[in-house]
Amino acid sequence: MSRKSDSEIKDTLLLKISERSAKLGIIGMGYVGIPLAVAAGNSGFPVLGFDILKGRISQLNACQSPIKHIPNSALEKLKVSGFEVTDDFTRAAECDALIICVPTPLDKTREPDLSFVESTMDTLRAHLRPGQLLALESTTWPGTTQEVLKPYIQSVGLDVGTEFFLVYSPEREDPGNAKFSTHTIPKVLGGDTENCREVGVALYEAFITKVVPVSSTKAAEMTKLLENIQRSVNIGLMNEMKVVADAMDLDIFEIIDAAATKPFGFTAYYPGPGIGGHCIPIDPFYLTWKAREFGLHTRFIELAGEINAAMPSYAVNKLVRVLSERGKALKGAKVLVLGIAYKRDIDDVRESPSVLVMELLRNWGADLSYSDPYVQTFPVMREHSFDLRSVPLSPETLAQQDAVLLLTDHTDFDYEMIAAHASLLIDTRGVYRRLGITVPTA
Amino acid sequence: MSRKSDSEIKDTLLLKISERSAKLGIIGMGYVGIPLAVAAGNSGFPVLGFDILKGRISQLNACQSPIKHIPNSALEKLKVSGFEVTDDFTRAAECDALIICVPTPLDKTREPDLSFVESTMDTLRAHLRPGQLLALESTTWPGTTQEVLKPYIQSVGLDVGTEFFLVYSPEREDPGNAKFSTHTIPKVLGGDTENCREVGVALYEAFITKVVPVSSTKAAEMTKLLENIQRSVNIGLMNEMKVVADAMDLDIFEIIDAAATKPFGFTAYYPGPGIGGHCIPIDPFYLTWKAREFGLHTRFIELAGEINAAMPSYAVNKLVRVLSERGKALKGAKVLVLGIAYKRDIDDVRESPSVLVMELLRNWGADLSYSDPYVQTFPVMREHSFDLRSVPLSPETLAQQDAVLLLTDHTDFDYEMIAAHASLLIDTRGVYRRLGITVPTA
Repeated sequence: MSRKSDSEIKDTLLLKISERSAKLGIIGMGYVGIPLAVAAGNSGFPVLGFDILKGRISQLNACQSPIKHIPNSALEKLKVSGFEVTDDFTRAAECDALIICVPTPLDKTREPDLSFVESTMDTLRAHLRPGQLLALESTTWPGTTQEVLKPYIQSVGLDVGTEFFLVYSPEREDPGNAKFSTHTIPKVLGGDTENCREVGVALYEAFITKVVPVSSTKAAEMTKLLENIQRSVNIGLMNEMKVVADAMDLDIFEIIDAAATKPFGFTAYYPGPGIGGHCIPIDPFYLTWKAREFGLHTRFIELAGEINAAMPSYAVNKLVRVLSERGKALKGAKVLVLGIAYKRDIDDVRESPSVLVMELLRNWGADLSYSDPYVQTFPVMREHSFDLRSVPLSPETLAQQDAVLLLTDHTDFDYEMIAAHASLLIDTRGVYRRLGITVPTA
Repeated sequence: MSRKSDSEIKDTLLLKISERSAKLGIIGMGYVGIPLAVAAGNSGFPVLGFDILKGRISQLNACQSPIKHIPNSALEKLKVSGFEVTDDFTRAAECDALIICVPTPLDKTREPDLSFVESTMDTLRAHLRPGQLLALESTTWPGTTQEVLKPYIQSVGLDVGTEFFLVYSPEREDPGNAKFSTHTIPKVLGGDTENCREVGVALYEAFITKVVPVSSTKAAEMTKLLENIQRSVNIGLMNEMKVVADAMDLDIFEIIDAAATKPFGFTAYYPGPGIGGHCIPIDPFYLTWKAREFGLHTRFIELAGEINAAMPSYAVNKLVRVLSERGKALKGAKVLVLGIAYKRDIDDVRESPSVLVMELLRNWGADLSYSDPYVQTFPVMREHSFDLRSVPLSPETLAQQDAVLLLTDHTDFDYEMIAAHASLLIDTRGVYRRLGITVPTA
């Protein structure tokens, strides 16, 4: 193949992108893939979704959004322009761009589990062809795109950079963020070669406000990790500071809010009952794992992980102490947990510290119930099982409890009503301080 | 004394403040006291400065500012309205408000050294009288105002909260910050009692744009520490990430700048050759010390301290490595250090990591010189001594060096000229990446 025809392959793909005739295949229709499909579809691209879960596929093809902040109407609009979801991966050959948005969790020994990425590539491999772009969005260790994905492409005889284009562009979804959406959050992108980067930037610029090119796929992978590492470390720091402040009879939430009045050099992060979700508790350890290959220890990540992981126990110990002061044991006590989603105003309980607190409470023998407006039934989880439904909050329900433990600070809770009727209320989020109501914190 | 006369004492002081007839005594005319005197003087208060250094006193009375960002004209303006500096502490009795701005360093075993605060109180004690406000601005451990200062006042029979008013309001000076000055940086303030806080807020509101009252002096003390702890920990994190990025052949400055394009949840901090100045390397350990009293360890602070302290060695090791690759030993090599101030565009070398790097270079037997437009002669320091003067930068000087090590990224350096003429240049600040010039980083 001559240089000219190589350049023709790239130019043809760039033309398809600029004309919005390039077909996008999005693999993994979840918290990342669905908003991405909506953003790309809204910009005029034909989008084909891939997933392996039959239930998810039929749900999406029926325009039922499984994500709170994506309305059904967004899927209906997409469907008009041909959007569908399939588990037929042979159709990957139809696509001009393939974007992988599958989970990258940790395994039981807290090592990276790339099995979803690898099984995707195993399946896709046979359907790759010249003139395609492949983008990975899943969070992963620096080097993954080059060391894991590229060999798959080379194994089918495609030359990366001339016939086929490979990029890494990390998702930056922030569920529940009212100010920013997929479309408006700047997107970092690294290419395996200059040509790869050029094609990748062209694609994403067609439906994302700002694309930030970096020098390599590895640099883009590290960027995403650094973002979540900083968050994990700062939350860990505030959790450690909470313990110190508690011992000194200081209110850490007051301290943080006062420090945040400094107009430079300080950013408010808040302590809580631990950290949750599919990013902050997991991503940092991808770097920890890879750093070991270089004989290095990521000590801040380890320390943050340790301190954050100890917070559910800290909250429960505080409850035990406050109950004890009232002459009451936790065993047999009626305890109502407020909020089981991993953060405010979302319905996602993955890695939620509330669930860990509930496990501890059950272990202590508490008579447990929960209330969460976004999670009506305790969901099926791999490692946790509670036969519970959300309790509607009323003065009567609250008054019946020995203790109420506020874990997730959903906007919808009627905080004043709760404080008025709970005989004992412990706030792990600092909500009540801002309302000017004094309750124990943990 | 009846309640009525108590309230009269407070009201009289409040009236003097509102009329700008209250005289302010500022103890410690340094980086904090001088800008404070200027801010208060500009708002119409008569200001009397106190210091123990004869040289500093005559310098200030001659309107010679020792601080780069405070012009002599500011002192001249102040003098017109009666400003003077004295070492006659009996004159504290003339003052309606006394504000302590003395250093609070660490001793040789890294424990809080409150000797300047204590000797100030020893001297002031005899000159305290009813109707005065005493404010401490020095950074210190939570509880200092209550546990250390208050007993001095009580020891001369003054009742705090009725006859005498005691507050803590931490300085938030940021030398070299062009956007904010003493006058415009919000000021946190805690009072020993409600009355104390009321008087303290009234005083500072008269010359600071925004005063942020908190619930106690202890809360205000903790607030200041938290600000600097967060900074130390985040710089430490970036230093650790730099080491990891280096090993992975990634440019940490590129990664940080890419991460900073995330419009929420990430704040850019940068690695460097270590941390310096009179705040960040010191303040966090005030909390470490006090936390031990409660059986607690401040592990993030310790880890940040350890990692930040290792960075001067890291920079030197990088230099050794790069020289070695050129077949050159550090011993006997001509090494020029650029920048010895602890941060950009200031003239302060206190705790500067550049000085630690210079110590290491001298130890290795390098033929050492330095260039810093703000520090013409290596200053007299307690623990460091170099008989060196700043070398003017020229193509010839640069070409004579075996290596040039950029440690402080002053705006005034001619970076392109430096890169053009240095045969080996190592950048610890990421300046050259932004200029699009490739040089080794450390």
